[in-house]
Amino acid sequence: MSDQDKREKGIAFFKQLTAGAENPPKLVKGAMPEKFTNYTLEHLFGDVWQGEELNLEQRSLITCTILVALNREAEQRIHFPGAKNLGVKREQLEAMITHAAHYAGWPVAASAFRVLAEVWPAEE
Amino acid sequence: MSDQDKREKGIAFFKQLTAGAENPPKLVKGAMPEKFTNYTLEHLFGDVWQGEELNLEQRSLITCTILVALNREAEQRIHFPGAKNLGVKREQLEAMITHAAHYAGWPVAASAFRVLAEVWPAEE
Amino acid sequence: MSDQDKREKGIAFFKQLTAGAENPPKLVKGAMPEKFTNYTLEHLFGDVWQGEELNLEQRSLITCTILVALNREAEQRIHFPGAKNLGVKREQLEAMITHAAHYAGWPVAASAFRVLAEVWPAEE
Amino acid sequence: MSDQDKREKGIAFFKQLTAGAENPPKLVKGAMPEKFTNYTLEHLFGDVWQGEELNLEQRSLITCTILVALNREAEQRIHFPGAKNLGVKREQLEAMITHAAHYAGWPVAASAFRVLAEVWPAEE
Amino acid sequence: MSDQDKREKGIAFFKQLTAGAENPPKLVKGAMPEKFTNYTLEHLFGDVWQGEELNLEQRSLITCTILVALNREAEQRIHFPGAKNLGVKREQLEAMITHAAHYAGWPVAASAFRVLAEVWPAEE
Amino acid sequence: MSDQDKREKGIAFFKQLTAGAENPPKLVKGAMPEKFTNYTLEHLFGDVWQGEELNLEQRSLITCTILVALNREAEQRIHFPGAKNLGVKREQLEAMITHAAHYAGWPVAASAFRVLAEVWPAEE
Repeated sequence: MSDQDKREKGIAFFKQLTAGAENPPKLVKGAMPEKFTNYTLEHLFGDVWQGEELNLEQRSLITCTILVALNREAEQRIHFPGAKNLGVKREQLEAMITHAAHYAGWPVAASAFRVLAEVWPAEE
Repeated sequence: MSDQDKREKGIAFFKQLTAGAENPPKLVKGAMPEKFTNYTLEHLFGDVWQGEELNLEQRSLITCTILVALNREAEQRIHFPGAKNLGVKREQLEAMITHAAHYAGWPVAASAFRVLAEVWPAEE
Repeated sequence: MSDQDKREKGIAFFKQLTAGAENPPKLVKGAMPEKFTNYTLEHLFGDVWQGEELNLEQRSLITCTILVALNREAEQRIHFPGAKNLGVKREQLEAMITHAAHYAGWPVAASAFRVLAEVWPAEE
Repeated sequence: MSDQDKREKGIAFFKQLTAGAENPPKLVKGAMPEKFTNYTLEHLFGDVWQGEELNLEQRSLITCTILVALNREAEQRIHFPGAKNLGVKREQLEAMITHAAHYAGWPVAASAFRVLAEVWPAEE
Repeated sequence: MSDQDKREKGIAFFKQLTAGAENPPKLVKGAMPEKFTNYTLEHLFGDVWQGEELNLEQRSLITCTILVALNREAEQRIHFPGAKNLGVKREQLEAMITHAAHYAGWPVAASAFRVLAEVWPAEE
Repeated sequence: MSDQDKREKGIAFFKQLTAGAENPPKLVKGAMPEKFTNYTLEHLFGDVWQGEELNLEQRSLITCTILVALNREAEQRIHFPGAKNLGVKREQLEAMITHAAHYAGWPVAASAFRVLAEVWPAEE
């Protein structure tokens, strides 16, 4: 698959992931150095995420799990709403975070729940 | 649910998780302080893992993901073969680890693949 | 001990921990999923924290130490003032953070001192 | 070398590191406990950083690398502009962060780029 | 306090910490670069550990807590037996590790209990 | 640049990195899943490492720094000898590790020195 093919797949995935975001992260220009943006769109989004061994819903849940375990709050703000777009249910995220509390510690769960409450309110 | 009910569920789950292990971790006496063993069997295995929002296969994949992200090799030796017992396919674990390389770094993936090769050889 | 007994002990401890807080974390409803709140009140606060091998002051110092080592700032905002409520002296927290700088790195100590200055000003 | 000699070297280095900062961290009084400040000025800045096996530019790049790998954003706000003062080029920092994305995970790189964009805008 | 005074205090502390070890870490020559050994003996052991705000037993418990939270097994092998030498009881270490399971995750506790069983068997 | 060009560059770099290793990690078949091997050779080694903003010596020192900060011992066994092959001096690695002790904690430095003594003895 050419870099250009990967890039198109990556951009399409990025739009799916961030659909409906009030402040979507900038897609191409300016936010990040060009090389890092290229690696993200072509390699990470356009190739790694497209692997068929896991579907997008599973990859989203896995990604969110890593972001909770490592306490990466800023990325949670992208991938928790993204999980909604990719087919993960809120109660699944809640259960994953509660599960993760026991394998990565209560504080990462508490932080993740605070982020979740902001970016994907329970009332929806 | 009483602590005794949780304990029975927890022990049953532990047996399912570690079925077929050559050197199964000791179930009750001696390996860990009694209180920690009780918390593990009654609370973690007998209550948290039994939550119905996620099935055992999903919880196994989530657990393995955390263990990869945090580079907890000793626990990977329990939960990678456990994943097999709980319905996760090897190619799913491989894809999760490859995915995790990008969110938690190449070294945790390389370590996880070395553990996986030992506890769940690819030829099986 | 029944879940209800643990819950009562857990709530009593939580009130002691957060006494005097301007914005106390919400106790029961809404902030966190119900199951996570139950685990926190009944298991963590009502059972683990009540273990008699260590007193509350020692458990507070241990908890604060973990929160510093792992750089969990949001939880520090609860447990640093909580330490005051549970009998830890400010100079002990300062010495622990300075000690931790050498075992977990200068940056976690610098962050912890910034939090401490906000939630437990030195002049008090 | 006496503690006083180290202190003088440490203060001189600190001024070089934070030259031009709009809100320089406070040098001596008040921000941190006196003992921690002394260790920082005399031992860390006045002794460790002065070791001749690596020059200041190399030590700055190493320090920034650790701060990225461990996701220490608050310290990045001091050491990214400090890198500029010590002779590191912005494109070197960008390349280091992109490199680190692969060894410590994409999220720490994304966070670091956000900090970098704030404290050392690309247009300069 | 001169570097030489710190060094003497540091060496005395190191002997107390490692008293009775079958394979004590080498004190001065060869194991580590000379500069790192000097920093360890003079600054860390001879100055930081001697601070009077916390006694040695408290500092030992804090150190062990950090080593558990960060999963530093090799250092646990030095500081768990060292805790015994400095007045910490085994049941306190056990309770700390069980407590830490909830703030840093089950896997670090399981690893720490395995190390503890090796370097400070429960039967003693 | 085509994937095949990247792959050739990646393989050449890998040979340079691991030249002289007694037990070189397997290059292509069997050790890791094919997809992960491809990503490593084509993307990480054949593209990221080839970026001209930093030379190989600088990238090696950066990589080793991350591996120390994150305590990735298994990868240190590849990249410490690799640093030698790429032009980093042992005294630079020593100084980096000593520096890192202060930003990531003493235990990661002690572990790294133990690995270094094994894979690149000081007497050479």
